[in-house]
Amino acid sequence: MRYNLIEPGDNEDITNERRGSSFSVGKMAAFIHGGEEKLRRRHEILKFVESQKDFQDPIPPEFMSRKERVENNARKIVAMTDKIAFIDQSDMFEEGLLFQSLIMGRDFHAMSLHYAMFIPTIQGQADDDQLDYWLPLAVTRGIIGTYAQTELGHGTNISKLETTATYDEKTEEFVLHTPSVSATKWWSGGLGKSSNYAIIPAQLIINGNNKGLHMFIVQLRDLDTHMPLPGITIGDIGPKMGIPGNDNGFLIFNNYRIPRKNMFMRYSQVLSNGEYIAPKHSKLRYGTMVFVRSIMVRDQAMQLAAAVTIAIRYSSIRRQGEWKPGLKEVQILDYRTQQYRILPCLAQSFVFLFAATEVKNLYMKVNKQLSHGITELLQELHILSSGFKAVVTWEVAKGIEQCRLACGGHGYSHASGFPEIYSFAVAGCTYEGENIVMLLQVARFLMKTVKEIHSNSAHLATIAKYLLDARRYKSSFQRWQTVEYEDLVGDFEQAARNQIYSTYNYLQQLQKDNHSAEEAWNCASVELCKASRLHILCFMAKSYLSRISQCSEPEISRILNLIGKLYMLHEISAHCYAFRMANYMSDEQMRSVKCGIYEILGNLRPDAVAIVDSFDFSDRELHSVLGRRDGNVYAAMLEWAKYSELNKTEVLSTFKNYLGPMMEDGRSKI
Amino acid sequence: MRYNLIEPGDNEDITNERRGSSFSVGKMAAFIHGGEEKLRRRHEILKFVESQKDFQDPIPPEFMSRKERVENNARKIVAMTDKIAFIDQSDMFEEGLLFQSLIMGRDFHAMSLHYAMFIPTIQGQADDDQLDYWLPLAVTRGIIGTYAQTELGHGTNISKLETTATYDEKTEEFVLHTPSVSATKWWSGGLGKSSNYAIIPAQLIINGNNKGLHMFIVQLRDLDTHMPLPGITIGDIGPKMGIPGNDNGFLIFNNYRIPRKNMFMRYSQVLSNGEYIAPKHSKLRYGTMVFVRSIMVRDQAMQLAAAVTIAIRYSSIRRQGEWKPGLKEVQILDYRTQQYRILPCLAQSFVFLFAATEVKNLYMKVNKQLSHGITELLQELHILSSGFKAVVTWEVAKGIEQCRLACGGHGYSHASGFPEIYSFAVAGCTYEGENIVMLLQVARFLMKTVKEIHSNSAHLATIAKYLLDARRYKSSFQRWQTVEYEDLVGDFEQAARNQIYSTYNYLQQLQKDNHSAEEAWNCASVELCKASRLHILCFMAKSYLSRISQCSEPEISRILNLIGKLYMLHEISAHCYAFRMANYMSDEQMRSVKCGIYEILGNLRPDAVAIVDSFDFSDRELHSVLGRRDGNVYAAMLEWAKYSELNKTEVLSTFKNYLGPMMEDGRSKI
Repeated sequence: MRYNLIEPGDNEDITNERRGSSFSVGKMAAFIHGGEEKLRRRHEILKFVESQKDFQDPIPPEFMSRKERVENNARKIVAMTDKIAFIDQSDMFEEGLLFQSLIMGRDFHAMSLHYAMFIPTIQGQADDDQLDYWLPLAVTRGIIGTYAQTELGHGTNISKLETTATYDEKTEEFVLHTPSVSATKWWSGGLGKSSNYAIIPAQLIINGNNKGLHMFIVQLRDLDTHMPLPGITIGDIGPKMGIPGNDNGFLIFNNYRIPRKNMFMRYSQVLSNGEYIAPKHSKLRYGTMVFVRSIMVRDQAMQLAAAVTIAIRYSSIRRQGEWKPGLKEVQILDYRTQQYRILPCLAQSFVFLFAATEVKNLYMKVNKQLSHGITELLQELHILSSGFKAVVTWEVAKGIEQCRLACGGHGYSHASGFPEIYSFAVAGCTYEGENIVMLLQVARFLMKTVKEIHSNSAHLATIAKYLLDARRYKSSFQRWQTVEYEDLVGDFEQAARNQIYSTYNYLQQLQKDNHSAEEAWNCASVELCKASRLHILCFMAKSYLSRISQCSEPEISRILNLIGKLYMLHEISAHCYAFRMANYMSDEQMRSVKCGIYEILGNLRPDAVAIVDSFDFSDRELHSVLGRRDGNVYAAMLEWAKYSELNKTEVLSTFKNYLGPMMEDGRSKI
Repeated sequence: MRYNLIEPGDNEDITNERRGSSFSVGKMAAFIHGGEEKLRRRHEILKFVESQKDFQDPIPPEFMSRKERVENNARKIVAMTDKIAFIDQSDMFEEGLLFQSLIMGRDFHAMSLHYAMFIPTIQGQADDDQLDYWLPLAVTRGIIGTYAQTELGHGTNISKLETTATYDEKTEEFVLHTPSVSATKWWSGGLGKSSNYAIIPAQLIINGNNKGLHMFIVQLRDLDTHMPLPGITIGDIGPKMGIPGNDNGFLIFNNYRIPRKNMFMRYSQVLSNGEYIAPKHSKLRYGTMVFVRSIMVRDQAMQLAAAVTIAIRYSSIRRQGEWKPGLKEVQILDYRTQQYRILPCLAQSFVFLFAATEVKNLYMKVNKQLSHGITELLQELHILSSGFKAVVTWEVAKGIEQCRLACGGHGYSHASGFPEIYSFAVAGCTYEGENIVMLLQVARFLMKTVKEIHSNSAHLATIAKYLLDARRYKSSFQRWQTVEYEDLVGDFEQAARNQIYSTYNYLQQLQKDNHSAEEAWNCASVELCKASRLHILCFMAKSYLSRISQCSEPEISRILNLIGKLYMLHEISAHCYAFRMANYMSDEQMRSVKCGIYEILGNLRPDAVAIVDSFDFSDRELHSVLGRRDGNVYAAMLEWAKYSELNKTEVLSTFKNYLGPMMEDGRSKI
């Protein structure tokens, strides 16, 4: 596949970087994206998106007010779903994500939750009659639905949601009610202004008895006028960090009545006489959550890759400081401190991206098994996707900020794209399972596993098998050039075992010291999170290695190897507490790890631009003046600034109203 | 001083927290702010600000468009400077900062640089005649000036700024010119729309010879019409992360002529015949920079304190999760993971705030000495303020994000105040000296010091004396309860020596391995930054201890001690690589450090709300719905959301234009 990013008129420095690269960007891009065919499709989708007039923004969205942005997004999402047939909808992980990000950018829209939550919940919770009625309405876009679970005062612990649905046998209706301010539904995407339906989890009350949380499908607005229905108060929750184009909303019910058949009845039923039929078995409802978390890992990895691409390209054209008087200023990419800020993030992008594929494959496998009633791998997927989600979102958020800060003042401008990338990505630390909660779930699994190992009753999941391996007493690490991956993985596993077993012992000790099980868990919880993190790190490292072992091109392999080593040494250095435990790694070895990092940075430097080119970001997808393919940053920034709303007039009214009179008065006093 | 934060109608949980505190908030507040009189003045200033009608915002600023915000800020800054006599203007560190933040919030305004840079530069650079002419104009607010140094393509390395000022002997004028796009002046606060004057550093060219960078005072806009003058292109640079109310600007000169006397001539002169008189000695121009960096440390510490206050108050009223069925949900402040996220930031706020006082005192001392021509402590102040600035801004930025993330979903809403606090504070990592550049300056000093020690020629600055102390081989740390501060400081010093000396050796080794001095410096630069960081940490710890030793109230001392220990143990854990070097601290000791952290967290928990109350933030200064004194968060969030521009109409035009027709079409297909 021909792949040439050099064009006449490009910035000279960035062209020289590309000319000097040691490998074929086309081959690397194909490897990253899973083959030439996938890459071809990426380009086809880009071309299609660029050819459609109604996918274009009239001005860069960062200059729009919230209202303009919501309007623009509504326009585009209708156009996008009109033309959804262009992409392979069975491939939401890649084609779906790309299509949406090329059109909608880093923002949500009126129908984000319609597709991510409303339709899947109907599919999962409605009985057959309900399915026949609601699914076509939703799929044809006859209604817009959202999913309103979170309340002002309630998030993670859904069993304490306050909204009630009280059955009225006389009218065969449920009465939805918001009993307190803290019960106000809050946050749901598209709830404020766009949706006319929502799925509402609420406490089901029959004859004064609380039957627990159930799901109701509720009309919110009139189909013709779009006015909120009587008994419904609804609105936008105000500006947030990021996603300005989405009307995240609030919702208050005032004894609002819905028909009995609007409770989803696939698993439990309420009969017309008020009889309640409980679900046969408490169902494993991992499905939607696991899917969203799995897809998040890829999306997050791509956001970090975008940040790294911007930072590296900009660092190649930005010159600052002199090493020798008389010479040109230094490209800031030549500073080791700059490399140290950015290149480990580059390595993480690769590792996370490849790990995302692993999670996706596991998801596909589990999905297939589930359709045959096999739940064998479900827990493994749940643990992995939770842990990955927590580790990846946090590292991505930190990494994006590092890349942004590495671009100096320009990193603060919305022209850079960074403020948007950061606010879009960092939210991933919180939604779909708050990270600390996720890590503690993984830890719960790990502690249970250790306990089983101690009692010899362990039937270990694949991902935990290394916990049984014999303890290594001394790392064999000497130099980065000669170390075998196998040994590095052994080091990671030992560090994880160090942390996991010592945390287990700490828990035991706390209980011996008269703490209850809950207290002990709470006291040890910071250590538990560290244990989970190291466990996930092991898996990351292994999945990266398994992926790069499939590479048969020496020029690509060389780069992937440098990236892998950089990643692993950097993680050792970042988690040195675990690698130094029981002197597993010595002072000397830690020094060698650090020198190794600095040397690898130097080795990767000449190929840095070519490596990020291989992520195959178009200027459209990247949406960053600093990260432009052509490197002509400064002229483009000046052009960009002209859109500023303050530049519509030469003289603002501030002069006439305040500053002018003040200055005239001041001058009159002299 | 009576100090009672409990009022009827407050949230019950927050009231219980206040009732249960072990110490007097009034006493702690007085200690933090430097005495009862200072505290009284804080309250007096607050009362004054609240009493002035023209200091009030018509709606919360976060709901304003950029244009509305710029307008609102211009109105308020004129009102504020009209009434500046209310505060003690010799006390910019405390009264000035408070007054401004109560009125302007976390934003800059039309005259930020007028006061921070324009006037000080006139004072420092103008000769006597120029002073007589320009200073009254500026001080009476007869003109608004800014300082336009940074160019699109040039920041830190000011010697390479491109803007030229070419002397034309015939007309006795300088011709200012922007020779390329990258020479466009960029970023200056108030430059885009507000200022009619600017000080411009430009390359002085006489008869084709470049005499280097000189400063020129330049009129940009017509005094009466405020239109840009011919030859000047000027505008706003567009939206940034943070400070939306400031018109950071760009500026292009097209052979723009100014009179000869507009070059500041205090140190060098250009005579009418073009003769250039060089400055007698290259002057130490630390003044303005050092002042701004010193004041920044305090401002940044207060931003972190604000974030911590919000997070702790919210964590006391937010309940989530159950430890025992049937009981109320748990206050999230009871989770150790939550304490671990927030309380170390609380400790840092104290340490940074007290360190800020130390820097301020040193600044005052140096200033006094300088007026007598004594420059003895100037370098020390320069090193300290650079290093502090770098360490504090970075830790503050990280800390604010930790506090924000600890508040879950609500931390993303602008109602929390966090998005604004973060974007306002994190910019400190970049402006007034990019952090990595600052750390490398400190490192330069440290490496020079080590070299002098090795050659026995060291005349050591006070802050570096510990480098000469005998090496400690083993930390004596056993338990946090019994360890003496003196020994902890010894540990910090040894860790700093470990890192500083090993970095020095690494530099030597690199040079032996045939790297030039510049190459070696670059290769070692990451380690050099770590050395600087540890050096500053030592000083922080010592300045905290010296401050708390002045506390004579046992109930306050107890808390300050817990905070100090938490800070120090947390830093040991965060920099464990340096404390474990040469096995200075053993496995067992590191474990004890970590357990110590967790135990102190539990000890501080019951007083957490009272401690942050002692920062004495009014609701006005804090500007956060989550952090409200009364703890009635949820109702206030709902009220706040009603300002959203999307809530001005029940039905947005998106329904008529896009979503309505789409849905109608969809329903027609069923």
